[in-house]
Amino acid sequence: MNSIKIDLKNAGIVFSQETKKQAENACGLLHSEKGAGNDFLGWLNLPSEITDEHLLDIENTAQILQKECEIVVVAGIGGSYLGARAVIDALNNSFDLLQKERVFPVILYAGQNIGEDYLFELQQLLKNRKFGIISISKSGTTTEPALAFRLLREQLEQQQGKEAAKRLTVAVTDKARGALKSLADKEGYKSYIIEDNIGGRFSVLSPVGLLPIAVAGLNIRELVQGARVMQAQTSNEISFDENIAEQYAAVRNELYKSGKTIEVLANFHPKLHYVSEWWKQLYGESEGKENKGIFPAAVDFTTDLHSMGQYLQEGQRTLFESVISVEKPNYTTIFPIDEANLDGLNFLAGKRVDEVNKMAELGTMLAHVDGGVPNIKITLPALNEYYLGQLLYFFEKACGISGYILGVNPFNQPGVEAYKKNMFALLDKPGYEKESEEIRKRIK
Amino acid sequence: MNSIKIDLKNAGIVFSQETKKQAENACGLLHSEKGAGNDFLGWLNLPSEITDEHLLDIENTAQILQKECEIVVVAGIGGSYLGARAVIDALNNSFDLLQKERVFPVILYAGQNIGEDYLFELQQLLKNRKFGIISISKSGTTTEPALAFRLLREQLEQQQGKEAAKRLTVAVTDKARGALKSLADKEGYKSYIIEDNIGGRFSVLSPVGLLPIAVAGLNIRELVQGARVMQAQTSNEISFDENIAEQYAAVRNELYKSGKTIEVLANFHPKLHYVSEWWKQLYGESEGKENKGIFPAAVDFTTDLHSMGQYLQEGQRTLFESVISVEKPNYTTIFPIDEANLDGLNFLAGKRVDEVNKMAELGTMLAHVDGGVPNIKITLPALNEYYLGQLLYFFEKACGISGYILGVNPFNQPGVEAYKKNMFALLDKPGYEKESEEIRKRIK
Repeated sequence: MNSIKIDLKNAGIVFSQETKKQAENACGLLHSEKGAGNDFLGWLNLPSEITDEHLLDIENTAQILQKECEIVVVAGIGGSYLGARAVIDALNNSFDLLQKERVFPVILYAGQNIGEDYLFELQQLLKNRKFGIISISKSGTTTEPALAFRLLREQLEQQQGKEAAKRLTVAVTDKARGALKSLADKEGYKSYIIEDNIGGRFSVLSPVGLLPIAVAGLNIRELVQGARVMQAQTSNEISFDENIAEQYAAVRNELYKSGKTIEVLANFHPKLHYVSEWWKQLYGESEGKENKGIFPAAVDFTTDLHSMGQYLQEGQRTLFESVISVEKPNYTTIFPIDEANLDGLNFLAGKRVDEVNKMAELGTMLAHVDGGVPNIKITLPALNEYYLGQLLYFFEKACGISGYILGVNPFNQPGVEAYKKNMFALLDKPGYEKESEEIRKRIK
Repeated sequence: MNSIKIDLKNAGIVFSQETKKQAENACGLLHSEKGAGNDFLGWLNLPSEITDEHLLDIENTAQILQKECEIVVVAGIGGSYLGARAVIDALNNSFDLLQKERVFPVILYAGQNIGEDYLFELQQLLKNRKFGIISISKSGTTTEPALAFRLLREQLEQQQGKEAAKRLTVAVTDKARGALKSLADKEGYKSYIIEDNIGGRFSVLSPVGLLPIAVAGLNIRELVQGARVMQAQTSNEISFDENIAEQYAAVRNELYKSGKTIEVLANFHPKLHYVSEWWKQLYGESEGKENKGIFPAAVDFTTDLHSMGQYLQEGQRTLFESVISVEKPNYTTIFPIDEANLDGLNFLAGKRVDEVNKMAELGTMLAHVDGGVPNIKITLPALNEYYLGQLLYFFEKACGISGYILGVNPFNQPGVEAYKKNMFALLDKPGYEKESEEIRKRIK
């Protein structure tokens, strides 16, 4: 089988021996499990540790939901949402929601916001439709998904009865503690475990990602297989010159040191939008601390060449670009000839649409490099489960290495509690009495 | 009627008399039509110049498409796409594509990318469905929409016949020149004009935006009315202290000078996602030139508090945040009580979901300001056509002023041609023979 590739020749960086050594050391530190955040390394060897039994169990659960549900709502936020959505959107039909003859349920999302209109419209939609719920939360008390889950659980029980609701609700949560675990035990929901040592943004290959992906009818065995291959290809036994995770980690840190403080992840395939959203969490949350870290931004090309293109070409020169390129489309569309040729496009007639896309990609790379934007190119041979599995693990691995090179703990997220604390104080959550009093004085 | 508001008290900027004067002068320069790019000021007085006749004509055309089409495909990119999508997504049902009993056609988009799989899947979807096309392009030769339009036009004629295709295709294009104009004249398509002095990113209140918005069943009169009110409220006769466009332009330039080089536009309403995409083009393309300009980024909260939240709280301190807040939801969802209270959320029981959202918003503002992220708050009384019209015009007006304060021509986009030139050379477009030869040498 083929592999994803990374091309750094337009990044404008020559690696010193010292830089290579530093990246290898960071990778070694990761594998030694002696670095910062080493209690959150469950993702590191996860692909090779997943058993066929585990996958079969997930597939069986998925089948129950597939058979009985028109719609399955995934209730999760952040890492309990983005991984599944990244894979599902990348591999489903672009117009999945409009397909008339469906084999698999529509996957919708809830608990990824606190939109009153969103939840109202979701509950309206679900009326008189057979639906199921996958509730994903380690603690079960994260406000957004817990709130959505309570609303949906009640609706499901009312619409389809207690027994069906039990059968059509699956919990993905902590193995022993937490509100969702207690609820699942009490109600008898089928449950999957989020291991203690797997953080949200590194959980896509755990049941957090795998179950919704399987329900959508996608092949989780291929996804895991791709990740396994990448796990082997990026281990600390692979030298820097062969190790694409070390290379990506090293190049972005070198660019950062040279003043390129914004990384723009670009794709030339509209289905990759949520892969970029997943990537933004992965890198932003892992590195954005101690007043440092590259600012992660994302664009979908060529769409955003007509919005952010001007800035990328001529704005502040603090950017570099990482481009995800998909070598071969899954379908074929040939551009037709038109005798009148009023649009002047006959020079494209007979070509595949993707050939135009590829020349846009190459032309953009050349233009942006000329404009002072270093370029990293990551190529997927095709867009399927196998190569996506490679890509996801590649980004995870490189992220761990990159954080260690930067000198932060890439596996914590101390800053995400600040707004929650304020919110709970403002909402008079029990236990926050002192904070409530203080914050009210402040906003008076 | 109420108005949108701006709150700068957490931006950490005290305006000097000089700053105020500078903003007033920039606004005056805009209105004098003597500044840079003054041949592209057609948007400035557009709201008040739109006639009832013009709106009626658009509504009549929209009715034809509504009556005959299950799906209407808008073929456009950049400013010929984002404005319409911003308004339609903001006001349509969150699950519009899944509605079973439709009053208005589904609006889909094409020509906003060069995705071979995307176009293949679109053409598959449109098979055996009644559809129409709105083709939007000043020149008619912008590659993406021209390519999509040729494919879709052929399909429409084959599926529904030449006569129906003529009736169900509408062109929005140049008044005299260009490929789309010639094609529309030859085929007899109903056409609307994009005036020479209206650039793409300022075209949402022209037929470019209004026609698709009307086809989606939204009230374009209210949209225009909102813009008219904002036009009056931000004229150069309104002093700085009352002029929210001048204030927004001034505060972001002051923040930029103080080292806040990234503006993060945040919303707490998931339907506003594409308003932010539209805003990114507006500001990025207007200001990102001469190696300067604020880098525009966007987040949807609370969703992205669980991905970009860590970075915003503790990453590089080069950010400021502009938050779009919607005062009142359109629907009511009350959070239910649950006797078992295993999720511990009974402290929220009886509250509206939006109350939780608003406390997340306030809590986030306080946390981010504490973390060194200045905050600008823009409040819409409600999410409807009228206030969106205000918001869009507000952003346009502030953008013109802001660009003049920054000292750039906010109405050109010289950098967007660079990649196109390369792409045409690579694709051997007639007329690019010399460039083709050169670029081939380069990539050998």
